[in-house]
Amino acid sequence: MTGLLLFAHGARDPNWARPFQAVADRVRAARPGVPVELAFLEFMAPDIATAGRSLADAGCTAVAVVPLFLGAGGHVRKDLPVLVEQLRAHHPQATWTLSPAVGELDPVIDAMARAAEAFLPHTP
Amino acid sequence: MTGLLLFAHGARDPNWARPFQAVADRVRAARPGVPVELAFLEFMAPDIATAGRSLADAGCTAVAVVPLFLGAGGHVRKDLPVLVEQLRAHHPQATWTLSPAVGELDPVIDAMARAAEAFLPHTP
Repeated sequence: MTGLLLFAHGARDPNWARPFQAVADRVRAARPGVPVELAFLEFMAPDIATAGRSLADAGCTAVAVVPLFLGAGGHVRKDLPVLVEQLRAHHPQATWTLSPAVGELDPVIDAMARAAEAFLPHTP
Repeated sequence: MTGLLLFAHGARDPNWARPFQAVADRVRAARPGVPVELAFLEFMAPDIATAGRSLADAGCTAVAVVPLFLGAGGHVRKDLPVLVEQLRAHHPQATWTLSPAVGELDPVIDAMARAAEAFLPHTP
């Protein structure tokens, strides 16, 4: 069984997490039976170690770790690979695969561009 | 003439800005004739005051300010309204409209969910 571990930055304001929870909810709705956990780097719970343990305990033999970040800065390029390496060490029965940040993927870039365009008048 | 001011966080790694530059390029391609500027809160140039001045100097009488952020944390809810208020004070000939963070908009949430799903095997 493959699980999904969505990883976001976190913030002090609880409202900040709403889009990330919405992403998790949509994947759960689209893929019933797939364990989906949302984890945060800081300020919010659960952290990635806790969420990863939940997925391993649920019986996942593979987990896709997907960073819900727009750009690949230090958190995605440096912090996250270390955290995923720790998950591999603690739960070697599962294969942990780290994907690119969603904001670097073409369909997400396209959606942001169309969203920005929608704030322009139709006749410039 | 309405201009577009895309506003992103910024980071030390120059590669971080690539998705944001891609968003700007796509809007420019889709809407030729619309002045589009990309500005950063920190680490990268131009800042929002410089980008806003460029748009005002280009003759924009209206500017849509669109935050390229996923969640609305302190930067979007507190810092950005102050910066937009400063643009209004410095360039009163233009109407400055602040939109929600793109990451809070349904099509962007949907694109992120579909991107995350694509990292799962087709048969879970």
